[in-house]
Amino acid sequence: MAEEIYGKPGSAGIVQTRYYTFAAPPGELELQCGEKIGPVTLAYETWGTPDRAGKNAILICHALSGSAHAAGYHSPEDKNPGWWDWYIGPGKAFDTDKYFIICSNILGGCTGSTGPASVNPATGRPFGMSFPLITIADMVKAQHALVKHLGIEKLLAVAGGSMGGMQALQWTISYPDEVESCIAIATSASLSAQGIAFNEVGRQAIFNDPNWNAGDYYDSAIPVAGLSLARMIGHITYLSEKHMHEKFGRNFQKSGMQPVSGSSEFMVESYLRHQGIKFVERFDANAYIYITKAIDFFDLNGDYGGSLVNAFENVLANYLVASFTSDWLYPSDNAKEIVRALRVNGKNVNYTDIDTDNGHDSFLLPNDLLEKNISNFLRNEYRQSTQ
Amino acid sequence: MAEEIYGKPGSAGIVQTRYYTFAAPPGELELQCGEKIGPVTLAYETWGTPDRAGKNAILICHALSGSAHAAGYHSPEDKNPGWWDWYIGPGKAFDTDKYFIICSNILGGCTGSTGPASVNPATGRPFGMSFPLITIADMVKAQHALVKHLGIEKLLAVAGGSMGGMQALQWTISYPDEVESCIAIATSASLSAQGIAFNEVGRQAIFNDPNWNAGDYYDSAIPVAGLSLARMIGHITYLSEKHMHEKFGRNFQKSGMQPVSGSSEFMVESYLRHQGIKFVERFDANAYIYITKAIDFFDLNGDYGGSLVNAFENVLANYLVASFTSDWLYPSDNAKEIVRALRVNGKNVNYTDIDTDNGHDSFLLPNDLLEKNISNFLRNEYRQSTQ
Repeated sequence: MAEEIYGKPGSAGIVQTRYYTFAAPPGELELQCGEKIGPVTLAYETWGTPDRAGKNAILICHALSGSAHAAGYHSPEDKNPGWWDWYIGPGKAFDTDKYFIICSNILGGCTGSTGPASVNPATGRPFGMSFPLITIADMVKAQHALVKHLGIEKLLAVAGGSMGGMQALQWTISYPDEVESCIAIATSASLSAQGIAFNEVGRQAIFNDPNWNAGDYYDSAIPVAGLSLARMIGHITYLSEKHMHEKFGRNFQKSGMQPVSGSSEFMVESYLRHQGIKFVERFDANAYIYITKAIDFFDLNGDYGGSLVNAFENVLANYLVASFTSDWLYPSDNAKEIVRALRVNGKNVNYTDIDTDNGHDSFLLPNDLLEKNISNFLRNEYRQSTQ
Repeated sequence: MAEEIYGKPGSAGIVQTRYYTFAAPPGELELQCGEKIGPVTLAYETWGTPDRAGKNAILICHALSGSAHAAGYHSPEDKNPGWWDWYIGPGKAFDTDKYFIICSNILGGCTGSTGPASVNPATGRPFGMSFPLITIADMVKAQHALVKHLGIEKLLAVAGGSMGGMQALQWTISYPDEVESCIAIATSASLSAQGIAFNEVGRQAIFNDPNWNAGDYYDSAIPVAGLSLARMIGHITYLSEKHMHEKFGRNFQKSGMQPVSGSSEFMVESYLRHQGIKFVERFDANAYIYITKAIDFFDLNGDYGGSLVNAFENVLANYLVASFTSDWLYPSDNAKEIVRALRVNGKNVNYTDIDTDNGHDSFLLPNDLLEKNISNFLRNEYRQSTQ
């Protein structure tokens, strides 16, 4: 996810992060791996107001490095709006004058929710690598408890890009009766072998950092170098070659030929290092490991007998699916595979392959066509659900 | 460069690596960075016999992780042929019954030639990071001394893939009168921003390894984890997404969902780790840093006033240029740019964009079309030069 945040006139305003802690009956949340965890806390933010009929609630799901802070500002002094501020606010695609918008941080994350950095009640120490394996379906299960807690019977829509799109798809499978519609952007029913490979080298970068210490670093120096390198690797895959060429080309940050050393020469090198270093300030290395594993394991083909058509057999939602022509991490073919499987099942799908040079990061960037598609899709869904 | 070596019936036979040590006048080789180095040793191998007229010598240049051992075997017990055995041997594309083939290891390398692991005569200790910056033109300059030493006035051809192709192109610019023809495969006149980015994260993986110790590890534990990770990152870029999908898909090496740990789950993960570990046994981390820097700095556009047309203004060679449709590290467009610039200068160019799913590694793999193109091109060049 890009570090640059694109604020749009018409802000959702000041928002506070809230926390919901729950002990699912019988006291713990049962995970897909068979283990139980509890109590579970989810950080979340909301914008807009629920209508009386309870028909206007939308859940936003975030990607690998996102948080509950999807729109607006945390204080009047705050200069950085939420990560999807371009799309969420009054009059925007996710219109906060009209809809009640919720964004929940994920289970297994590190920005307010229960994750590997949380204290294990059984030991009084941070979980670290003793945290149980989390899947996309587990993230959705925890979000479901939050949505119930907020008194919402049925979501008008669940929406997200990248890993957020995986959650949105999973919602329609896990809770078909509780989702009117699904907006899945720059996502896939399962990550490619190449995508898994990139996640794995990122994890190896963390494992190789002596400060990682098998995940037990919360009382000592953190694995700055490893997490930073994982982020650098990730960033290459979020941009298209063309975008990188246009942004950096072969331009030098420092002049000419430098002695071989750790110092930057090409602009693209210093850009990546800057992204890596900034990331470490706000993210936990163990969470990075757990979340990338959840992405790798997500497999709507494999989990349903090798058939995506089977996976969508019982869904009831209407779908908006969008991909970006220059996205090589979650290429358009992945989206088309989802669209095909839904249509074989006779589901209602609106699909657009958006022409852009910005690679996978496109889902975070201002895009008129994406905005219009979301806006129209939601208007239509809202009209239908309130008829 | 792939670890798998493809031997073809009709071996070049047993070959011994030889070494040429020279002190270029006035005793040292002057490098592009301004520093001087000497004495310089180059490891090389040869196959076939020079003809009387001295018209049949071909120089093979290797890629990032290659060596002088391009064909045949080092002993009767040796099970692994040289890295381009498919293309070099009796009756093969580089026909050792007909041509005198030389393959030289590069200056700055680690398989027998002077490089960062060599002892600095001034200190009696390995150079490490005090080794001077090496460029592709420096590698070519050292090879030129070897070719003169072997009594060759003019090469029938200089050939290589990837970084080997960069050297081949550079030969025709540095020594236009001494090269009849050039075979440049899966290469570029300058690496893309994305390519630089991948090289940089590989270097960072090495820098992050505490055993790297600023390049001073020759008396202690070597940076196994860092170099291995750099190789893993590289390997992803050598394969196409399609090839990875077909080879590994989302298949598991170990069954099902494993606890989050350093252990492999997906086949693609264990494949990459295996590649990484094998590489460390035969390659020096500092050499990896120096060679990737040489690749990054190679720039026939930038070095000639931003114009590739200028770069080729004075070349005299005929060219065979080949690219592979699925190569995203050195994409076909890079080759086409070379071809265009040569044609603007009225040079004789034979270009083929070869349809394959094997990505950048294609230049190392058996390919009938590539073989035929090289074979025909060389036959023609040889006929012309001996007329």
